[in-house]
Amino acid sequence: MKFQKMPGTQDLLPGAVERWQLVEAKAREICRRFNFREIRTPIFESTDLFRRGVGETTDIVEKEMYTFEDRGGRSLTLRPEGTAGVVRAYAENKLYGEPDLTKLYYIGPMFRYERQQAGRYRQFHQFGVEALGSAEPALDAEVIALGYTFYTEVGLRGVRVEINSVGTPEVRADFRAKLLGFLEPKRQLLCKDCQSRMDRNPLRVLDCKVDQAHFEGAPSILDSLDEACADHFAKVKAGLDDMGIPYEINPRLVRGLDYYTHTAFEFKAEGIGAIDTIGGGGRYNGLVGEIGGPDQPGVGLGLGLERTVLILEHQQGEASTAQPLDVYLVALGEAAEREVSRQLHALRAAGLSADRDYQGRKMKAQMKSADRYAARFTAILGDDELAQGQIALKRMDTGEQRMVPLGELAAAIQGE
Amino acid sequence: MKFQKMPGTQDLLPGAVERWQLVEAKAREICRRFNFREIRTPIFESTDLFRRGVGETTDIVEKEMYTFEDRGGRSLTLRPEGTAGVVRAYAENKLYGEPDLTKLYYIGPMFRYERQQAGRYRQFHQFGVEALGSAEPALDAEVIALGYTFYTEVGLRGVRVEINSVGTPEVRADFRAKLLGFLEPKRQLLCKDCQSRMDRNPLRVLDCKVDQAHFEGAPSILDSLDEACADHFAKVKAGLDDMGIPYEINPRLVRGLDYYTHTAFEFKAEGIGAIDTIGGGGRYNGLVGEIGGPDQPGVGLGLGLERTVLILEHQQGEASTAQPLDVYLVALGEAAEREVSRQLHALRAAGLSADRDYQGRKMKAQMKSADRYAARFTAILGDDELAQGQIALKRMDTGEQRMVPLGELAAAIQGE
Repeated sequence: MKFQKMPGTQDLLPGAVERWQLVEAKAREICRRFNFREIRTPIFESTDLFRRGVGETTDIVEKEMYTFEDRGGRSLTLRPEGTAGVVRAYAENKLYGEPDLTKLYYIGPMFRYERQQAGRYRQFHQFGVEALGSAEPALDAEVIALGYTFYTEVGLRGVRVEINSVGTPEVRADFRAKLLGFLEPKRQLLCKDCQSRMDRNPLRVLDCKVDQAHFEGAPSILDSLDEACADHFAKVKAGLDDMGIPYEINPRLVRGLDYYTHTAFEFKAEGIGAIDTIGGGGRYNGLVGEIGGPDQPGVGLGLGLERTVLILEHQQGEASTAQPLDVYLVALGEAAEREVSRQLHALRAAGLSADRDYQGRKMKAQMKSADRYAARFTAILGDDELAQGQIALKRMDTGEQRMVPLGELAAAIQGE
Repeated sequence: MKFQKMPGTQDLLPGAVERWQLVEAKAREICRRFNFREIRTPIFESTDLFRRGVGETTDIVEKEMYTFEDRGGRSLTLRPEGTAGVVRAYAENKLYGEPDLTKLYYIGPMFRYERQQAGRYRQFHQFGVEALGSAEPALDAEVIALGYTFYTEVGLRGVRVEINSVGTPEVRADFRAKLLGFLEPKRQLLCKDCQSRMDRNPLRVLDCKVDQAHFEGAPSILDSLDEACADHFAKVKAGLDDMGIPYEINPRLVRGLDYYTHTAFEFKAEGIGAIDTIGGGGRYNGLVGEIGGPDQPGVGLGLGLERTVLILEHQQGEASTAQPLDVYLVALGEAAEREVSRQLHALRAAGLSADRDYQGRKMKAQMKSADRYAARFTAILGDDELAQGQIALKRMDTGEQRMVPLGELAAAIQGE
């Protein structure tokens, strides 16, 4: 019986996984500098949390969740995104009671049952941050700056930031009415998705890729902002200007989730062919209260790591970023083999990366192994050398070889 | 509506998560030295994989799996352990076709629906390695050495290694008959679990904590080993001796899984009160073939990270291992606040960790924040300093304070 991974999941193998390690290490490093600290929430949560925290009428909740009953009859869902769980943990663990602002980040798997297509996975991975407890626009700018810094330092070229204000719920109700007044006469001209969105979430209609031609002259939400919203937005822009983060204003940007207030933003990059959204986020001043916490404001972002890695590979080529091995040990004969195992352990204990053959291969095949591991050194031990208490150490870049006493192998390698 | 995490899951919050980060970083570091490379397999796999790869009659498969149907009608299971998925990926991606031995490690969440008790989680985390493609006993010793090195370097005191040989399936059939001959006359004296195990997996009976008094004089599997098995076991022991890894032989150690051949081992440490098994593994020469791959031998280990972290906290105390912040910026007045945001971004761009207040708090409250973050420096900017293009830099350990030009703040901090 042969087994295969499930559709929409992937194996990350050596050779490919190293790029993920670098991307994640960079995310952690940036978060350290921005003083965000890691939180790890469970892979599954109660289904109701996502219904409430993501929104009943979203595609995610309606069509894409992995929902099931556990052996105790609870309805569980594999998390489809990161924010709801983090906000739940913030409320449940009463982090709002601490004197400092709560600045959290997460990296991990998320799950959505999506149609199968290239670059779309049912298990995918996000890096996200959430800053809870402050309504200051400077914090929105900090979160956007964090995302931009991450993409830039990870080596992604041509990343663009788009920002918008989606105002408060009151502002949006006002704008929704104006927008529907504009859209209704065109309803029959629009695609099926747009017609359905007009009834459920009209703000998202303007995002449609098909119908742009019909939207000329559409009202802009930025004209509906009240004074407080306009002031918040102006300060976010000033903050980005001060930090030198380039951005564009896209008044049609609304994001897929209902809970955003004031700032919404997306990161875009040239993918394979088209411009892709690779991450985004916004401010969500009502969400903590919505899931039963105190009325605390928040702002966050979520970045798709599959997308990031895919575009990096596209831009940089697929070359492995694996680290070279410090030393590969070659044994000739049984007594030498046993000594080599002893040496191997001593080298590793000294902090060096080291390996040997475990397949009884000939010396030539072992030397090829050393090449594949990009070994900096090989050390060769035969019975003669063993009798003399020495080992032949070869520097692979120069080909230079010399005899080293067995007890001094680690020091000899570390000294070069 | 208030939401809570699901029973058996946990939130890892800042203050506690740092120890996990250290433990995982150490696992990765040890794997680099031992030349194991990371693999990441999906969180869920087909249910049949675990039925076959873990064993139909194990507790895990019978009672503990999170199994559910996806929207396409497939039976999925959240992985209850790490080996089956890695071996599936090894076979499916034809890693056995590569010239070198396949040495893989993984770190990640696993899921078992267990009865709720202290220190037992339904989502738990394992660090594991699998070495596939060699039957050499020196490789068993290497894997044991890797586990022992991990525990030692992560700082766990008093870790003990127990090893055994469970032979081949033929050896075990022979031993099972001898053992049942010894146990049958005592059947009525044994606990219910033991009676049930006598029918399903008699080798595990000797592991029982309740019935030890009845097992004196029981046959030892080590007396049933054939010559090849005895030779393999002798070489594993010699390998451990050569590397200076201390171990004890425990002929009753069999592990919970059916697929082990030859070497089985466990790591134990003094937990809270009792001696706990904190990890283990063994050789599994039949498993790859069992799940549809070629007949390749393997050896691996799996270590429970919750257990490791819990005992570390017990031994070392719960003090946070969070890194100190490099600098906390304090702004007095609105103009200063905007300049501070600019400085903040410049410091972070220079690689320093830095933060400011976003809650409009008074200077005294901000200085307390700096203390809680264990900030090495604070930098204070008021309107007067701003007018002079300077900022007051204070070293927190000495209390020493001096004026620094705004453009030289990062350099001034990096220079100290």
